[in-house]
Amino acid sequence: MTSGGDCPGLNAVIRGAVLGGIKRHGDEFVGFRDGWRGVKEGDFMNLPRGTVRGISKQGGTILGTSRVNPYEGPLGGPEHISKVLKDHKVDALMVIGGEGSLAGANRLAEAGLPIVGVPKTIDNDLNGTDYTFGFDTAVQIGTEAIDRLRTTGESHHRVMVAEVMGRHAGWIALHAGMAAGAHAILIPEVPASADDVVNWVQEAYDRGRGPLVVVAEGFVMGETGEAYSHLGLDEAGRPRLGGIGEVVARIIQERTGIETRCTTLGYIQRGGVPTAYDRVLATRLGMAAAEAAHDGAWGEMVALEGTNIHRVPLSAALHSLKTVPKSRYEEVAVLFG
Amino acid sequence: MTSGGDCPGLNAVIRGAVLGGIKRHGDEFVGFRDGWRGVKEGDFMNLPRGTVRGISKQGGTILGTSRVNPYEGPLGGPEHISKVLKDHKVDALMVIGGEGSLAGANRLAEAGLPIVGVPKTIDNDLNGTDYTFGFDTAVQIGTEAIDRLRTTGESHHRVMVAEVMGRHAGWIALHAGMAAGAHAILIPEVPASADDVVNWVQEAYDRGRGPLVVVAEGFVMGETGEAYSHLGLDEAGRPRLGGIGEVVARIIQERTGIETRCTTLGYIQRGGVPTAYDRVLATRLGMAAAEAAHDGAWGEMVALEGTNIHRVPLSAALHSLKTVPKSRYEEVAVLFG
Amino acid sequence: MTSGGDCPGLNAVIRGAVLGGIKRHGDEFVGFRDGWRGVKEGDFMNLPRGTVRGISKQGGTILGTSRVNPYEGPLGGPEHISKVLKDHKVDALMVIGGEGSLAGANRLAEAGLPIVGVPKTIDNDLNGTDYTFGFDTAVQIGTEAIDRLRTTGESHHRVMVAEVMGRHAGWIALHAGMAAGAHAILIPEVPASADDVVNWVQEAYDRGRGPLVVVAEGFVMGETGEAYSHLGLDEAGRPRLGGIGEVVARIIQERTGIETRCTTLGYIQRGGVPTAYDRVLATRLGMAAAEAAHDGAWGEMVALEGTNIHRVPLSAALHSLKTVPKSRYEEVAVLFG
Amino acid sequence: MTSGGDCPGLNAVIRGAVLGGIKRHGDEFVGFRDGWRGVKEGDFMNLPRGTVRGISKQGGTILGTSRVNPYEGPLGGPEHISKVLKDHKVDALMVIGGEGSLAGANRLAEAGLPIVGVPKTIDNDLNGTDYTFGFDTAVQIGTEAIDRLRTTGESHHRVMVAEVMGRHAGWIALHAGMAAGAHAILIPEVPASADDVVNWVQEAYDRGRGPLVVVAEGFVMGETGEAYSHLGLDEAGRPRLGGIGEVVARIIQERTGIETRCTTLGYIQRGGVPTAYDRVLATRLGMAAAEAAHDGAWGEMVALEGTNIHRVPLSAALHSLKTVPKSRYEEVAVLFG
Repeated sequence: MTSGGDCPGLNAVIRGAVLGGIKRHGDEFVGFRDGWRGVKEGDFMNLPRGTVRGISKQGGTILGTSRVNPYEGPLGGPEHISKVLKDHKVDALMVIGGEGSLAGANRLAEAGLPIVGVPKTIDNDLNGTDYTFGFDTAVQIGTEAIDRLRTTGESHHRVMVAEVMGRHAGWIALHAGMAAGAHAILIPEVPASADDVVNWVQEAYDRGRGPLVVVAEGFVMGETGEAYSHLGLDEAGRPRLGGIGEVVARIIQERTGIETRCTTLGYIQRGGVPTAYDRVLATRLGMAAAEAAHDGAWGEMVALEGTNIHRVPLSAALHSLKTVPKSRYEEVAVLFG
Repeated sequence: MTSGGDCPGLNAVIRGAVLGGIKRHGDEFVGFRDGWRGVKEGDFMNLPRGTVRGISKQGGTILGTSRVNPYEGPLGGPEHISKVLKDHKVDALMVIGGEGSLAGANRLAEAGLPIVGVPKTIDNDLNGTDYTFGFDTAVQIGTEAIDRLRTTGESHHRVMVAEVMGRHAGWIALHAGMAAGAHAILIPEVPASADDVVNWVQEAYDRGRGPLVVVAEGFVMGETGEAYSHLGLDEAGRPRLGGIGEVVARIIQERTGIETRCTTLGYIQRGGVPTAYDRVLATRLGMAAAEAAHDGAWGEMVALEGTNIHRVPLSAALHSLKTVPKSRYEEVAVLFG
Repeated sequence: MTSGGDCPGLNAVIRGAVLGGIKRHGDEFVGFRDGWRGVKEGDFMNLPRGTVRGISKQGGTILGTSRVNPYEGPLGGPEHISKVLKDHKVDALMVIGGEGSLAGANRLAEAGLPIVGVPKTIDNDLNGTDYTFGFDTAVQIGTEAIDRLRTTGESHHRVMVAEVMGRHAGWIALHAGMAAGAHAILIPEVPASADDVVNWVQEAYDRGRGPLVVVAEGFVMGETGEAYSHLGLDEAGRPRLGGIGEVVARIIQERTGIETRCTTLGYIQRGGVPTAYDRVLATRLGMAAAEAAHDGAWGEMVALEGTNIHRVPLSAALHSLKTVPKSRYEEVAVLFG
Repeated sequence: MTSGGDCPGLNAVIRGAVLGGIKRHGDEFVGFRDGWRGVKEGDFMNLPRGTVRGISKQGGTILGTSRVNPYEGPLGGPEHISKVLKDHKVDALMVIGGEGSLAGANRLAEAGLPIVGVPKTIDNDLNGTDYTFGFDTAVQIGTEAIDRLRTTGESHHRVMVAEVMGRHAGWIALHAGMAAGAHAILIPEVPASADDVVNWVQEAYDRGRGPLVVVAEGFVMGETGEAYSHLGLDEAGRPRLGGIGEVVARIIQERTGIETRCTTLGYIQRGGVPTAYDRVLATRLGMAAAEAAHDGAWGEMVALEGTNIHRVPLSAALHSLKTVPKSRYEEVAVLFG
């Protein structure tokens, strides 16, 4: 089952698991529909080999997804879910999901259910794995979009602001910003003040470029928002309405007098054809998850370490998010301005 | 000079004109900076052959652009501009611009200035030419983005709304929507009511898809906005704040109960590497404009007709915009729902 | 039915025809498999609405294709084919094919069969239509590939030769070469001598670039091949073995002493996701072909003229290929060297 | 200096080093032209900040490259090169190169020269680092091309063979083949017999697909070539003329009777815009190399380990290539057929 927000590579995980399991062990697979909803309701589709043909390059998930919680409602909890699995002769449940889903999976595994996990977050903010699939695609799409913004900024002598995904962690902004040569990158982990931003922008502008600012959606302006209340910043340094990118653009324009435009990349970052990197990573994770199930590695998930796929306890991915360390940000910030 | 909003292909026009003029006639070229501002202030750069090397594939314009009007201010008007051209021994001025710039160019040409035009509008809404460069790139980028939205919509059983460029004409929405297989396309020329939109969306949803709606930024909801005032529609059927795409998304969600998300493509549609189609069209227009100048075709512009580049009076592009004919829209609307 | 070499946009034609026919007229559609083979053998699949869902962006053809001739063999000819159509209650046959298939279609229509045509050639060499679908995608893929070759050529101070499709007509080479800024474009219609090529290449090299040569597969070296027999050219100016691009590269290297490399783009030009331009054109052609069938426009095909789709007799596309006129080539050749 | 074959990301390394060095330490940079040739001849260009503006996304190398050896000829060897560096007040030399260049760099460093290295190989076959920049771009381009081949193969019921780079190591074939869902991947490290290949292909064909075979250029047919001598295989299992992909295609066609076509991707794999992944990796390596120079880490190179950039002795990358382990290949081979 696939759970939570969709992510490029989900179908490659499914294909890797199904092909690997069938060819190595003669397994049979079913796919529960729409995440935990399908598990709870026993709603599934058969997954013979033909159903995973050519799906690695498709975005989204052929199984559908939802944000349903495995513990809520009358059908929630280990007893009912265990019954569903047994009724349908499911020997192992593979949960492809983010922190919430893996937490649920962990609780169910602790309650004795035969569950293995595959970590999924487009934001790359799960611990226990070097990278998660989908992240590379999001960074690539973001970089291509920002490359496009740059030519417009330079032609019009404007500041271009791009808001990218990243509610709690700034990995997408950090990587796409580095790749596109941004003059400022603003992430949730490191508050920057309006003065910082204005300095970076003005410096780049004075060298004759159209400055480029990349902002993660979860960025918080590092000072009381009162000074910019009239531009839509609230007291906590967050936007009162709409996205933080728009507010940052307004502040830059008011402070520097340079025309400033914001583009919010939105959902185009998470859909569509995955990069080759994500397809390879996802396929390997899927194959490894099928092996984990055969080894009865309940309560574990498959993860990337260096160039290897290995297993770690589900708990390794829980409790705290993998955010951008200050040192890593400062390394990049050298390039600003 | 390049004037108005930037557009993929501007640099290919410049290169085509410069290489064509140099190789056929031994011409010398200068480029005025930032549109009419540079013309009025006599601010230009020399354009020897080396400066246009490899620029066809660059977005934006190496000359910079602005929205300055050639008639405004103390440096405006034919007398001063004529003096600038003579002072710098400029025998012909090539104006690459949209309706406003070409109108100014036409007035100046009527006043006796040696001016030829190249039509430019990313929205494809200029009369006198089959297509304008930049449009194909905008449609391509829009289509790729909407392809990405589609997989997310289908995985989450959501309606996805994409807002694309097109303030007065719906060509980008029409073409990108057709290419991406949208279930509804909403354009400025043809008001659709909330009932229409909801029917199209619901029908597509009931057939098991994630419905896809493409909205041009200039779309007007075809009924009094009062009914949806609480969702941000004003009395004229326009958004009170933000973009029309967001408002359409809110109306769909309220009326159908299906989760609906909007992405506004924004500036990524107009920057970056032009498609091959636009590079070829722009190169041909640039070469033809250099010939037009040699023929003293003042007051004319170069244009595409079928597979040929020919000349038409600048006035052919003025007075009214080329909008989507109702018959053309209805042809496409057959595919909706 | 789809016949001959595959071409990006075939599926969009099918979808346009099926959706248009169903929604406007309540038609039913079947698709014959693998071109004329399926027609002759009565081998087809039903095409209800769901089967064409989302296929516009898929390369290839869901119906399969072949190079079978409708007149050959015991199952060939109008009588048997007419019987197949009647047996399966097919009221109209839509032939999507190139010159050979359309010639067969024309003969069958003249024999009284209810046939309409859709012109298909990735080389854009059919008369009777401004452009054919698939051509834009081939040019776009070729241009992107040549853009990539260019950076390698410049870094290594090498000449890069790219061989593109075009057996009889040089349209792809002409457009991709213009778009990528080639220093020489060699096409079947216009013989160039080794001296010409060497001059163009040397001139570009001396200005400090990595020269870029685009060669159509059908190019013929315009002099007796004897002088370059040791490099693989035959007496007719064609390669004795392999492609003409390789031979041109060898000649350039021997004559200029500059390291020269050839890449033959091959099949990557004809497969995969169509451009938005091709999807729109193909969808419009498909819809118009369904209308043509309803109007009983037997023996006609749908075609692009300017911005309109109209109908012309199938014979308009036969008898001679649409090759690159000398004047059009010379216009572009101004940019060489 | 950049040395050896060009590789997407070279310019990002240069930019990372220059910006990092200038902003952290106020360094000055020069770039030697065309690899060791420029070093030996003292031929260089100044690299003030403006020269690296926006170059991360450009393929190739702004410095040019060559395959010149630092030890050959009258200008070779440590004494002369040391003199060049001193004459031009170069305190540290950063060598961005492959195994050959790094071996030269190591020898020079052992002779006392102030040299740091950055590992470069598009084939990903250098030891001492998890991945090298350029590899991801080559895999991505290869995957996109193979995706395109697939639709043609399926429409024509043909076998499509793609030959990709990889003379000694099959990493590109392995990753692009996995990403594109190949039915056979043939690499230099693991000989496969014609029987193996034919079985994999036939099995895929029988399941109704157009089989897809990815071959690295260095693949060796695992049996005496005599049996296929008439198809161009030599006794060592290598092609007598041209590429191994063509020979494999001929063998498949003869043995299975299925039409088979080969496309050799060639130089398009190494040029052009780098992926975001490669730009980020290359930028980080460049910045780290500037730091290494400041720390006097002579004889060391910067490398990727997991998510970190660290330093290893140059010797770690020498002596043996990093080839695909048999276990890794067998893991993937499960998916074949």
